[in-house]
Amino acid sequence: MPYFDRLSARCAKVGALCVGLDPHPGVLQAWGVSDDLQGVETMALGVIDALGDHVACFKPQSAFFEIWGSRGISLLEKCISAIRDTGALTILDVKRGDIGSTMEAYARAYLSNGPLEVDAITVSPYLGFGSLTPAFQMAQAHDTGVYVLTRTSNQEGTDLQLGTTQGGHGIAQSIVDQAQEWNQSTGVNTVSLVVGGTHSDLGIDLTGFSSSLLIPGIGAQGGTISGLESSFADTPALLLPSVSREVLLAGPDPHRLHQAVDQVLTS
Amino acid sequence: MPYFDRLSARCAKVGALCVGLDPHPGVLQAWGVSDDLQGVETMALGVIDALGDHVACFKPQSAFFEIWGSRGISLLEKCISAIRDTGALTILDVKRGDIGSTMEAYARAYLSNGPLEVDAITVSPYLGFGSLTPAFQMAQAHDTGVYVLTRTSNQEGTDLQLGTTQGGHGIAQSIVDQAQEWNQSTGVNTVSLVVGGTHSDLGIDLTGFSSSLLIPGIGAQGGTISGLESSFADTPALLLPSVSREVLLAGPDPHRLHQAVDQVLTS
Repeated sequence: MPYFDRLSARCAKVGALCVGLDPHPGVLQAWGVSDDLQGVETMALGVIDALGDHVACFKPQSAFFEIWGSRGISLLEKCISAIRDTGALTILDVKRGDIGSTMEAYARAYLSNGPLEVDAITVSPYLGFGSLTPAFQMAQAHDTGVYVLTRTSNQEGTDLQLGTTQGGHGIAQSIVDQAQEWNQSTGVNTVSLVVGGTHSDLGIDLTGFSSSLLIPGIGAQGGTISGLESSFADTPALLLPSVSREVLLAGPDPHRLHQAVDQVLTS
Repeated sequence: MPYFDRLSARCAKVGALCVGLDPHPGVLQAWGVSDDLQGVETMALGVIDALGDHVACFKPQSAFFEIWGSRGISLLEKCISAIRDTGALTILDVKRGDIGSTMEAYARAYLSNGPLEVDAITVSPYLGFGSLTPAFQMAQAHDTGVYVLTRTSNQEGTDLQLGTTQGGHGIAQSIVDQAQEWNQSTGVNTVSLVVGGTHSDLGIDLTGFSSSLLIPGIGAQGGTISGLESSFADTPALLLPSVSREVLLAGPDPHRLHQAVDQVLTS
C-alpha cells in the first residue's frame, strides 16, 4: 500500500502526531542517563516502547546516531526495527540531497530493502527539486515516501526560502508546485513537504497540495495544534505535526510521556 | 594547524587534486567486483592504497556506504583511517544541513573527535547559511573545515542557486559573501565552498574569496583543469578540483590509476 495511504490509515486510528527522537544532551540529562550510546539507547527505546501504540509516527534524528559512528547506526537499525514492531511508521530525518547516482544511492539506502529501510525520509532541495527525482522514483516503486524541506521552522531559512528562483517563482512555492505536479502526474501522493509550524505568515500557497505536511516547531519551538489548524485551514493536505523536546523531556516515566502527548494534542 | 593550512601544505607537496570515492554500481563493475559491501571495500581501499601518496585529498561519498547500514559505516571508518595513514586529507561528502542542536550533532559527528572524524565535510545551506554556524564553530575549534554547497555542478541547481534572496541578494553570491565574512572576522579560512567546474558562466563573483573551492565536475561531467584555470582566473582562492569516475574507472591496476590522475591533472 502506498506510504500516503498507510500514513492516513495510521493517523485515522491513533491521531496525527509524529514524535521526534532527538536524543540531544539536554534530553539525556532529563532522563538521568549518560551522554553516550548506552544513554541514547535507553532513551530512544524507552520512548518507542512507551508511545509506540499511541502515536502515528516516530522521527529519529539521524545526526544523534551518526555521532557514534557505525555503533550509532547499528542502534538506529535497532530503533527502526522496534518502531516497525509497534505498528507506528518511521520518518527518518536525514535531510539528504545530492545528484544522479549519489541521490540514487541515498534512495537505495533508506527507501528500498536494506538495513536502514524506513517508511519515509526527509530530503533537502538546494541542488534543485529535479535532483531529488531518484528518491521520488524509488519511493514510488517501494511504497515509501519523501518529505522535501520547503519552508522550515527556523528563522535563518526565511531569506532563501522566501526568495525567488532565477525563473521568477517563489522558491518554497516552486517546491510546493513541483511536488504537487509529481503527485498528480503519477496519481500517488509520494512527495510530501516539511513546512514549519512557527510562522505567522507562511508565505506559500498550499491550497492545491493534497499529500502530507510534516510540521515541526510544535511545543518547544512555540507552535500549537490549534494554531496549526488556523494557519493551515486552507489546505486539503494531511497535517502531521511533529513534536520532540516537549514530549521527550517528560520521560522516562511512560505515564508522563503519554500525558505529554495528550497535552500537545490538545494545545 | 587549521584545516586550510594543512590543505595548502598538502597541495604544495603533491598537487591540488581530490579523488572522489564513489563506489557506484558502474565503478564496481569496471573493477570486476560485486555490488556488495565486499566489492565496495576492495575498490575503496584499492584506490586509497594506489593513490594515497599521489593526491591531496580523498572525498568518500557517504551515500554509498550508508546503503549498507552500520556495516557500511564501519567500512567508512576503516577508509577514513586508511586515508589518514597515507597522509592525504579526507573531505567527507555528506551534504548535511540542519538547525540548532541537530546541526551541532552533525558537527560533533564529523568535525570533532569521534569514530567518523574527518578533515572536512560538505554541508547544504537550504535552511540558511546561519543555520550552519554550529559546524563552523566546531570546525574552528578542532582545526577541521566545512565546504558549503554554493553553485553546484548539476543543471537542476541553477534555478534556485542563481535566484534571489528575500533581501534581494543573489542566493549563491550571498553564501560566498557570508563565508568570506566569517573567515575574515575569525581570521581563519574555516569556511570553504563547493562550486561546480562545469559552468560556462558561474554567475557569482569570487574575487574576494580567499579560502578553498572544492570543484567537482572535472572529467566525466565535462570540466578540465585548464578550463578551470580560466573560469576561476579572478579568484585568489585555493582551487581544489575533484574527480571521480574518470579516475576510478581506470582501476583496479595501480599503474593505470596513477596514469588517470596524471591525465586529469594535464587536461
